[in-house]
Amino acid sequence: MQFEGKNAIREALRSVVTINKLLVDQNYASRKDELVKLAREKKVRVEFVPKAALDRKSTTAHHQGYIADAVDFAYTPLEKMLPKTDEPALFVLLDGIEDPHNFGAIIRSCECAGASGIVIPKNRACQVNDTVIRTSTGAIANIKIAQVTNLKEAIDFFKQHGIWVFAAETGGESIYQKNLTMPLAVVIGSEGKGVRPSILEKCDGVITLPLEGKVNSLNASVACGIVVFEILRQRKFND
Amino acid sequence: MQFEGKNAIREALRSVVTINKLLVDQNYASRKDELVKLAREKKVRVEFVPKAALDRKSTTAHHQGYIADAVDFAYTPLEKMLPKTDEPALFVLLDGIEDPHNFGAIIRSCECAGASGIVIPKNRACQVNDTVIRTSTGAIANIKIAQVTNLKEAIDFFKQHGIWVFAAETGGESIYQKNLTMPLAVVIGSEGKGVRPSILEKCDGVITLPLEGKVNSLNASVACGIVVFEILRQRKFND
Repeated sequence: MQFEGKNAIREALRSVVTINKLLVDQNYASRKDELVKLAREKKVRVEFVPKAALDRKSTTAHHQGYIADAVDFAYTPLEKMLPKTDEPALFVLLDGIEDPHNFGAIIRSCECAGASGIVIPKNRACQVNDTVIRTSTGAIANIKIAQVTNLKEAIDFFKQHGIWVFAAETGGESIYQKNLTMPLAVVIGSEGKGVRPSILEKCDGVITLPLEGKVNSLNASVACGIVVFEILRQRKFND
Repeated sequence: MQFEGKNAIREALRSVVTINKLLVDQNYASRKDELVKLAREKKVRVEFVPKAALDRKSTTAHHQGYIADAVDFAYTPLEKMLPKTDEPALFVLLDGIEDPHNFGAIIRSCECAGASGIVIPKNRACQVNDTVIRTSTGAIANIKIAQVTNLKEAIDFFKQHGIWVFAAETGGESIYQKNLTMPLAVVIGSEGKGVRPSILEKCDGVITLPLEGKVNSLNASVACGIVVFEILRQRKFND
């Protein structure tokens, strides 16, 4: 993974991301430069290189004289996701979320709700990148994320371990009527298409947010937030 | 309000926005062009003009040969916001939301929760623009939005009409313990700073989402969604 440009690198240096080295345009930046100072404080190696080297390495064409090499995000293997505590599991499976802002907001909501982890498919979905890390505002350091080739296998894995798998989609049981206190994995569909039919039929059930308006769906990250907090409410704050 | 570029104009033509006329680069577009056709279907006047005219009018420098003149969004006066039904009011006051994607998602959530309306301040806050309209996915057509000079006066207005005003902030009563079935206006704070102290002290109380993680806040549009749906749950789905 690499970060380019002043703002992105400043935020990365202050975040949970491990930066290997910072490349700086030798003609542009001084050795007392703010980012160079911050990198050194964080014990990151700084190299001053010709602008042409940055141009070659850049993927965005907006490096502004700075490129940081970072360790790729470490996904957790599925089998290491299961919680070790007695608390009922709460997993969120993302069936093709594409917007990095939605993915980052979902990570943040899941962490705030004390979820056990998040599972994403390797293909046709947003992976953890610099925007996702930034949007999660630090939450990504405190929650496990698994990346799987096939979401259906992940569903089987959870079922085998006594965890119920519900899809959050229209046409199911109201989240306010359904008991959601058992160990649970919830599938959240993509922004445009919702949960795919082939995934839906693997699930143990469908849970639905009752909507009062004329618009028939919420933003994916908002829907996910409402569902995980309703689960939290039923488990901890129901009297 | 004006829309620029193919995608933005296509979506605007299909949305609730009223387009006055579509300006098209005379050298570039043919009279059988997809957007020209769509505009004519929607009874929008099409004018073919020199590229230089578009360049002068453009504010984004990405007009792609198309600029659409649209009617400005019609805000509702505060005094016309009060619901006429017997259902308890539910207003959302945004204290400085700056991100148009958050604002659009909030409009969508409020519409889906059957809220009575949204109030935004005229200054230092995102106003209804093309991104907000697009992100609201049509919801903006079904909900009233008031634009006020001073959010404190709006709070006084609601109080005078028997509507309680609560700020959604840390350090207050849990939304799961607090009774939220009375006529209510909820203040949602800005992305970075939350609800301002001067607004907080005008409110009748503070309600808080109990968080289980290490990160101490949710994305503003997610937090708003969870709060308005908890209010809806208490009013309609509590047994």
